[in-house]
Amino acid sequence: MSEQRITPRAEDYSQWYQDVIAQAGLAEAAEVVRGCMVIRPHGYAIWEKIQAELDARFKATGHKNAYFPLLIPLSFLAKEAQHVQGFAMECAVVTHTGLKAGPNGIELRNELEEPYVVRPTSETIIGHFFKKWIDSWRDLPLLLNQWCNIMRWELRTRIFLRTSEFLWQEGHTAHATHEEAREEVLRMLDVYREVCHDCLALPVIRGVKTASERFAGALETYCIESLMQDGKALQCGTSHDLGQNFGKAFDVTFQNQAGERQHVWQTSWGATTRLIGALVMMHSDDDGLVLPPRMAPVHVAIVPIYKTPEERGRVVGAAQEIAAALRADGRAVELDSRDDLRPGAKFFEWERKGVPLRLELGPRDLDERSVLAKVRLSEIDEKGRGKKLKLPLADLGVTVGKALDDFQGLLFRRAQERIQANTVFADTWDEFRALFRDQESKFVYAHWDGTAETEDAIKDETKATIRCLPIREDAPEKSFEPGRCVKTGRPSGRRVLFAKNY
Amino acid sequence: MSEQRITPRAEDYSQWYQDVIAQAGLAEAAEVVRGCMVIRPHGYAIWEKIQAELDARFKATGHKNAYFPLLIPLSFLAKEAQHVQGFAMECAVVTHTGLKAGPNGIELRNELEEPYVVRPTSETIIGHFFKKWIDSWRDLPLLLNQWCNIMRWELRTRIFLRTSEFLWQEGHTAHATHEEAREEVLRMLDVYREVCHDCLALPVIRGVKTASERFAGALETYCIESLMQDGKALQCGTSHDLGQNFGKAFDVTFQNQAGERQHVWQTSWGATTRLIGALVMMHSDDDGLVLPPRMAPVHVAIVPIYKTPEERGRVVGAAQEIAAALRADGRAVELDSRDDLRPGAKFFEWERKGVPLRLELGPRDLDERSVLAKVRLSEIDEKGRGKKLKLPLADLGVTVGKALDDFQGLLFRRAQERIQANTVFADTWDEFRALFRDQESKFVYAHWDGTAETEDAIKDETKATIRCLPIREDAPEKSFEPGRCVKTGRPSGRRVLFAKNY
Repeated sequence: MSEQRITPRAEDYSQWYQDVIAQAGLAEAAEVVRGCMVIRPHGYAIWEKIQAELDARFKATGHKNAYFPLLIPLSFLAKEAQHVQGFAMECAVVTHTGLKAGPNGIELRNELEEPYVVRPTSETIIGHFFKKWIDSWRDLPLLLNQWCNIMRWELRTRIFLRTSEFLWQEGHTAHATHEEAREEVLRMLDVYREVCHDCLALPVIRGVKTASERFAGALETYCIESLMQDGKALQCGTSHDLGQNFGKAFDVTFQNQAGERQHVWQTSWGATTRLIGALVMMHSDDDGLVLPPRMAPVHVAIVPIYKTPEERGRVVGAAQEIAAALRADGRAVELDSRDDLRPGAKFFEWERKGVPLRLELGPRDLDERSVLAKVRLSEIDEKGRGKKLKLPLADLGVTVGKALDDFQGLLFRRAQERIQANTVFADTWDEFRALFRDQESKFVYAHWDGTAETEDAIKDETKATIRCLPIREDAPEKSFEPGRCVKTGRPSGRRVLFAKNY
Repeated sequence: MSEQRITPRAEDYSQWYQDVIAQAGLAEAAEVVRGCMVIRPHGYAIWEKIQAELDARFKATGHKNAYFPLLIPLSFLAKEAQHVQGFAMECAVVTHTGLKAGPNGIELRNELEEPYVVRPTSETIIGHFFKKWIDSWRDLPLLLNQWCNIMRWELRTRIFLRTSEFLWQEGHTAHATHEEAREEVLRMLDVYREVCHDCLALPVIRGVKTASERFAGALETYCIESLMQDGKALQCGTSHDLGQNFGKAFDVTFQNQAGERQHVWQTSWGATTRLIGALVMMHSDDDGLVLPPRMAPVHVAIVPIYKTPEERGRVVGAAQEIAAALRADGRAVELDSRDDLRPGAKFFEWERKGVPLRLELGPRDLDERSVLAKVRLSEIDEKGRGKKLKLPLADLGVTVGKALDDFQGLLFRRAQERIQANTVFADTWDEFRALFRDQESKFVYAHWDGTAETEDAIKDETKATIRCLPIREDAPEKSFEPGRCVKTGRPSGRRVLFAKNY
């Protein structure tokens, strides 16, 4: 990692992503713990904002938080046949407890009779408790959510996007009917979309996964998919219709109003610290992190400009008043009055940390009762919006509020336009292959014959996968026309969404 | 577990504690995961309130949240000699990853080269990163906190008080001088005390632990100790002066302003889900859970009283208006309009859940523009405070607010008085032994000769341990008189605080 330089996207996109994260102080690879990461304060503060937005919406839709054990008996995982297959390779297993001094250093003391798996997801342990808690239709729906850490031993990791340990929330609900469960699946998918759009400024497409991309043990997996700056797709959240699969595996039944015992219908849905990676990839530029104001731990950085101690006193004093007034409006403000750094170095640092708005305040500004403001995004300088603006100190709260709102909106529109520009249709195999040549990728709508064999063949040849079958509102009307599979020429009822993915 | 009955305290205190937790739906033993628990929604909502109060104060004192890996390389634990000894017995160890189908069912796939310990606390892994992040005095103080799960394989567990997995926060800070680190240790001890007093209504005594009760690897461990209804003490939070022990073990150095490299001085401090257990034990009665309003997930339960559908419509409509008005004041309100339960059963249920205030609203109350109010604590009926009060609907928001504030204050005073009444001095060994006969326990101030041998001998004979050496503000003046050890008769500079403990 270079201490100063951020690799330009055009030079090495993957290194750019790592540099942005490192230079913003969001996180770093743990190295000594394979595939794991340390989330540093600036990154964790973003996670707290994502948590707050999601959690408020989960509660508003009737869910309650709970906490289930980290460790899952090995035998539990095996109760749902597809589930254990899906997670078998990724399990970390606790086999011993206690340490003792041995001839070659520390040794393990007691072997467990039955090993425990560190939770890769909690359907099984929660199924066990649902059986204890659910007896009658009166106990339904049961709407729970858990915020916790998850362990999936991954071979190839990438910070925030795929790590052996990550943080997430997992919703788990039980319902009396399949219809009600399906409504829940879509309701929570919409919650994810709303938070992505309104808070993360991250445009997503809602859709359903193919069988081969389904959650292990689900009837149907819904997802939200977004497209990053390099044209690769990123899955940003999933919502699963579990049907009665776990209900049957854990014998979770209820007595319905007619007095009959039936298995419950379940859902589960999750979003993870990967969303921080999505934020970074979607908005940042070659100068470093760019954050939408609603996700920014610091909204405004104030840099006082002075030469003499007298100027310093006057300018820092005024800056403190400005900071206090903005904080009273609910803005997170950093007043950077460090004496051992020049203003230029401070500008540089706050830009890399993705602070949406910088205010510069010098003696002349004070004389003129104004302040120089600079919105983070240098790329739009040409259009005039990124230029330094002279803002009157009177009503600064209002202008700052408007600047932040505008910036939030701008980032979302910019992202939407870029995704739009990178979404195409391919109707022949040559067209399709050309779109995924080398490192190239886009959102590509193409016909598919509906078989796993063709899906695999397309993936083998192009590395493109079916990201989802988008729902009607989120895809162009034209994608719902019938046609012929781009690979096999067999009939297809609609186009599906392809891309290379993270 | 009986579905209906709460064992009275006088009959079996330990069973009473479990019954209160079960009947309130706070948590239950996980059984299938040894020594672990499930925290149910009503219990987790209390934890969220504790988190919010602590987290706001951590941030106000300059700390930032971060997240470190769950797994710690075995060799890290061994770098601080006392530390590994202290935690050796309690470690759960991950030795394998991946599962495969074998002749006898599921088998483990890959053995790790170096096993990982599931974090029993994070000083070691954090020490590793402090070394990477700290280089100059400008990087200090480094003030971090982590909210996470912790695993300590315990032989004897008791729900919330001692479980193999629990939730906590662990603060970890690094400083340039010992003096500054010691200030931090005491500052965070005071934060714990403030939250216990002002929010949990839990009176605590601040003090310092003896060497034998010290955190493994610390120079000094400070604690807050409270006394439960049965006279047993409960440690409610700890704050450690780690000196340079971990700084040296992980070679964490900084260049001071004189250009010299020195090891940092560190602190760590933690509070856990055990605090939920403390709340339960401190305030509850034979009718079930009692919660101080600031920790109650539900402040007010409204039970409409009606016979005919017409009455129901009128009464429930009015109750909805009352609920909306109280919610607008920031109260958490449950309007219990279930038709399949009689009012008496509803009263019973909300009492067991520890709701501080119940409002009953029937047609006659509505005619009189009033509502019947009942504060949770039935024990004070005799004094008139627990009786049902007729409150006018006009200004109900104000009277409800006052009732909740009064109840918060009452619980704290009641707890203080009980602890006061159970705090005594013992100056002879016969007195001392009598105070700890059978199941008896109190806070007992007694002289001690300062040796671990005497501490052990006292514990062996009476099961009483030295809870702490209280700080001057939190102990009677008389306890700081010199005297002679209650056990050995050797000289002692001050009395220390004994009790049996959880």
